[in-house]
Amino acid sequence: MTKYFSQRGLRFLLHEVHQAEKLCALPQFQDHDKESFDLMLDTARRLADGLLYPVFQEMDRRPPELVDGQCKVLPQVRSILREFAEGGWIAAPFSQDEGGMQLPVMVNTACLFIFNAANFPASGYLGLTTGAAHLILSFGTEELKETYVPAMLDGRWQGTMALTEPGAGSSLSDVAVTATPTDQGYYLISGQKIFISAGDHDGADNIVHLMLARIKGAPAGVKGISLFVVPKLRPEGAALVPNDLATAGVFHKLGYRGCPIVQLSMGEAGDCRGWLIGEPHKGLAYMFQMMNEARISVGKQATAVASGAYYASLQYARERPQGRPVQSKDPHQPQVPIIEHADIKRLLLFQRSVVDGALSLLLQAAKYADLSSHGPQEDRQRTYLLLELLTPVAKSFPSEMGILSTSAAVQVLGGYGYTDEFSVEQYFRDMRIHAIHEGTTGIQGMDLLGRKVRMQDGLAIRHFVQEVGSDIEAARTDGELAAYGQRLGEALDDLVRVTELKKALLQEGRIELGLADATLYLDLFGLVAVAWQWLKQGLVARGALAQGAGEQDSKFYLGKLATMKYFFHYELVRGKGLAARLGENDPVTVANQEDLFSD
Amino acid sequence: MTKYFSQRGLRFLLHEVHQAEKLCALPQFQDHDKESFDLMLDTARRLADGLLYPVFQEMDRRPPELVDGQCKVLPQVRSILREFAEGGWIAAPFSQDEGGMQLPVMVNTACLFIFNAANFPASGYLGLTTGAAHLILSFGTEELKETYVPAMLDGRWQGTMALTEPGAGSSLSDVAVTATPTDQGYYLISGQKIFISAGDHDGADNIVHLMLARIKGAPAGVKGISLFVVPKLRPEGAALVPNDLATAGVFHKLGYRGCPIVQLSMGEAGDCRGWLIGEPHKGLAYMFQMMNEARISVGKQATAVASGAYYASLQYARERPQGRPVQSKDPHQPQVPIIEHADIKRLLLFQRSVVDGALSLLLQAAKYADLSSHGPQEDRQRTYLLLELLTPVAKSFPSEMGILSTSAAVQVLGGYGYTDEFSVEQYFRDMRIHAIHEGTTGIQGMDLLGRKVRMQDGLAIRHFVQEVGSDIEAARTDGELAAYGQRLGEALDDLVRVTELKKALLQEGRIELGLADATLYLDLFGLVAVAWQWLKQGLVARGALAQGAGEQDSKFYLGKLATMKYFFHYELVRGKGLAARLGENDPVTVANQEDLFSD
Repeated sequence: MTKYFSQRGLRFLLHEVHQAEKLCALPQFQDHDKESFDLMLDTARRLADGLLYPVFQEMDRRPPELVDGQCKVLPQVRSILREFAEGGWIAAPFSQDEGGMQLPVMVNTACLFIFNAANFPASGYLGLTTGAAHLILSFGTEELKETYVPAMLDGRWQGTMALTEPGAGSSLSDVAVTATPTDQGYYLISGQKIFISAGDHDGADNIVHLMLARIKGAPAGVKGISLFVVPKLRPEGAALVPNDLATAGVFHKLGYRGCPIVQLSMGEAGDCRGWLIGEPHKGLAYMFQMMNEARISVGKQATAVASGAYYASLQYARERPQGRPVQSKDPHQPQVPIIEHADIKRLLLFQRSVVDGALSLLLQAAKYADLSSHGPQEDRQRTYLLLELLTPVAKSFPSEMGILSTSAAVQVLGGYGYTDEFSVEQYFRDMRIHAIHEGTTGIQGMDLLGRKVRMQDGLAIRHFVQEVGSDIEAARTDGELAAYGQRLGEALDDLVRVTELKKALLQEGRIELGLADATLYLDLFGLVAVAWQWLKQGLVARGALAQGAGEQDSKFYLGKLATMKYFFHYELVRGKGLAARLGENDPVTVANQEDLFSD
Repeated sequence: MTKYFSQRGLRFLLHEVHQAEKLCALPQFQDHDKESFDLMLDTARRLADGLLYPVFQEMDRRPPELVDGQCKVLPQVRSILREFAEGGWIAAPFSQDEGGMQLPVMVNTACLFIFNAANFPASGYLGLTTGAAHLILSFGTEELKETYVPAMLDGRWQGTMALTEPGAGSSLSDVAVTATPTDQGYYLISGQKIFISAGDHDGADNIVHLMLARIKGAPAGVKGISLFVVPKLRPEGAALVPNDLATAGVFHKLGYRGCPIVQLSMGEAGDCRGWLIGEPHKGLAYMFQMMNEARISVGKQATAVASGAYYASLQYARERPQGRPVQSKDPHQPQVPIIEHADIKRLLLFQRSVVDGALSLLLQAAKYADLSSHGPQEDRQRTYLLLELLTPVAKSFPSEMGILSTSAAVQVLGGYGYTDEFSVEQYFRDMRIHAIHEGTTGIQGMDLLGRKVRMQDGLAIRHFVQEVGSDIEAARTDGELAAYGQRLGEALDDLVRVTELKKALLQEGRIELGLADATLYLDLFGLVAVAWQWLKQGLVARGALAQGAGEQDSKFYLGKLATMKYFFHYELVRGKGLAARLGENDPVTVANQEDLFSD
């Protein structure tokens, strides 16, 4: 089996860099320890190796089909969902009284990363059920919890998040599905939803949609959106009754083919019933819990897809002989494996720098999630702000860089990479969804610059500067890392400078101009955040080497340092161009009216 | 029909920027004039609209299949090839005594661009036959010309370039197909070729492979490679006899599906005959004529695919209402077309800057090709060197930027872009071949920095600096463009500085380190070259506006200026990071041995 992630690398990040064990000092996680975390990683790996990776290509080649109104998927989907449930994976981070294991989000993230890397489309089903169940548990009535959650945690019922409509994609304020109150305790739901992942399939006995809709007479915009549970089949006593919710279509996609994305039609016969979650008109606020979790999850999935592509291309680069060293091209000598060519090393280091850098950032964000919910009271606000700040970054950096990273994997394989004889073309296709779903990169940029950076007068970014600064400080006395700390400090200064510049524009009310380059700002932020994570990894690697590591471990740590250097010399340096552009306020894009595109 | 290229934009580049008409003063092109050029463009467009674009998606969805050893394609391929032939397109740039029209390469490039944009895979068949026929005409015997060329120009026989083998992709010095001399005037060919575009299909009556092989006893390496004509069916009298050349497989590809890429097996029965072209062991030198043409052609195809994607996303952006202006988000107001959002404008301007910038560079290269072959004697060496220098740049800039550009088109469409309900996902897949075939980007970088830049002690790049410098000089007196000229001048200085640095390493014999970042060097060179082309376009647009253009024309010229500004502010600025990295000689990538990738 081709390697698709590094167990050694994951443990390095979890234990050595982010010190997961320290979380066990918190009451919420007191039943866990380092050994139980490792056991979870091993269990996840066995499930991934045995059940997920083997059907990675088959699920792509035999995508879901709509047959007589029912979306059909491969029979393996059902067994995968049952195994997820039996292993406790659907509820792993939930508290014990909710049926969970109280696993830290950070450790759960590491485990799910393994599933994602083995087979991202298959693992997509899991996260949706977890998020939907979590939403019901957080804001639903006891009756809703009892009715829906057990079957969801059991893997028999599939959860979804049903937000998007034909006229409401990025603009959720235009959600048009209506909910008409009845005196029976439920609402009658009517309208269309599109692009609903796992929104229908025969690998589950029922589909439970967490759906945004507008109660008749509600205010316009996001302030009139409510959240409902809308099942495909509604439980009536012991029976499951069709709920007038039809699958109107299954989309044919570039990638991510193993998981159906469907169009739903509610209430064609006037009897699609939905049950309100929480209070009317507050649906979007509740949904943001699932959306924020989903955004981190998308970043993780993107990183995992990039990981699969990286290891596939690494293996090829080691095995494929082609060409000779540029300094001695004697055709009588045998060809060398392409990993010996500088440009191939560059393409591999690039991929590894994205994968290990983004994964470290995701674990950092997950740690903030754990601390903001279960850490010491006095630290919760700070870590909550850091999580909020980093969510769009952790979502977008791997989603955008992953396009280039999987493209680099294709490039390593050359012509073969363009064919379906190898897996890299599938990773390249699978990757492309991530910059789109759960909020496009453009939306994430606006969230970061327009909202997160401005929260509490910039408190979140001040915390961030402090976090990064303390690692720069730690690097100052290290002969090899001090120069890298300095580079990071300069990039951080650039980031702070352009942040102030944009905030000033926004404060002056020049909103359009101030936000025009939000996507570039997000890109720069991602470079700084990931360089920070690389400096962290470098510090740990240097420390371990100084303490004397064995031969195999030494290679691992030296490889980490080499990849860190790559990231600084080749990627962080891109920040110079971004900072230069962000430092200008020339309205290049917004100055153009639509008719200037006429030709 | 969705627009896939701009006729107005093409004429602007051909006539206003590159002044095609001036070529008509040369004896070779004296039968042409501006009107005949425009007639060719119109004819090409009609053929593309009527025959190519309508089957763009169908050819992707019904890819070639191998049936009983015969590669089958859609029946439309045959009619397309006949139309190409009847229109004179296969031989358009050839001299009249070779059956051609003596059309300038620059004008031919513009016409072929239209075909490529309408349906890149379908147009792929054409260029291969042209290149193969040109090779036979340039170096073949009279007998070979008479035997093969008429049927090729007639569109009945398909030409190919057969270089790659399972063990010889980027490393052509390892070509292993053998040619055993006989006393019958032919050689017996034996071995395997892979990745042969249009290497077998039933849209043609015969396939004529221009094949690299090694004559028994030839020296090792590139100095032992010879060039042969190896037909699928060999003409014997009036009959066509099977030539012991089998199609061993058809590759399933990510994109570019309308054109088959096959594996060939020669001489399984010991009777595959090939006819030598030119002298023994000089095959690679001859083949470089076709390869250089093919490299420019790949750049053109990549630009054309990006053009198709750009116009598809532009149309969507104009028609899709979503969201409201960031400065006034009143949900009671109707949604606005997404083209009004700054980030969508950025994604569109980015695409247009790549398409129009790369196309201008390709026409510039084509002009150098015309001048180096048919221009005033005293200018031929200079323009030849410029063509050689720009070939890897013109191939790679659109091929690499096109990945991002078509990705941006997908992003404009959001979730819809990820589905096959729109064409952008196909453009994204089709594009990815261009950085691979006809020499990967890595190979192009080594060609540029290791060979082209060092030719004649750097004479080519000195010519290039002079060419760019004269346009910077022209911009100095223009109030709006002077600042852009200055930016270009600074980037050009950076390019010259890092060129000298890398040349110094190479002269010291530090070849591996000197070439390690050749791909980044190529990227920087591309930014400077395309910024130069944008400055040229800006100068023409400013001139036209100063002379007073009509309303529609004014919008066109203002759009050109806006796109030029975009390129300088958002793309050329990337050169700062590239120059910073290229200015270091830290051996980041080459310092890594293979085992540092262990984890």
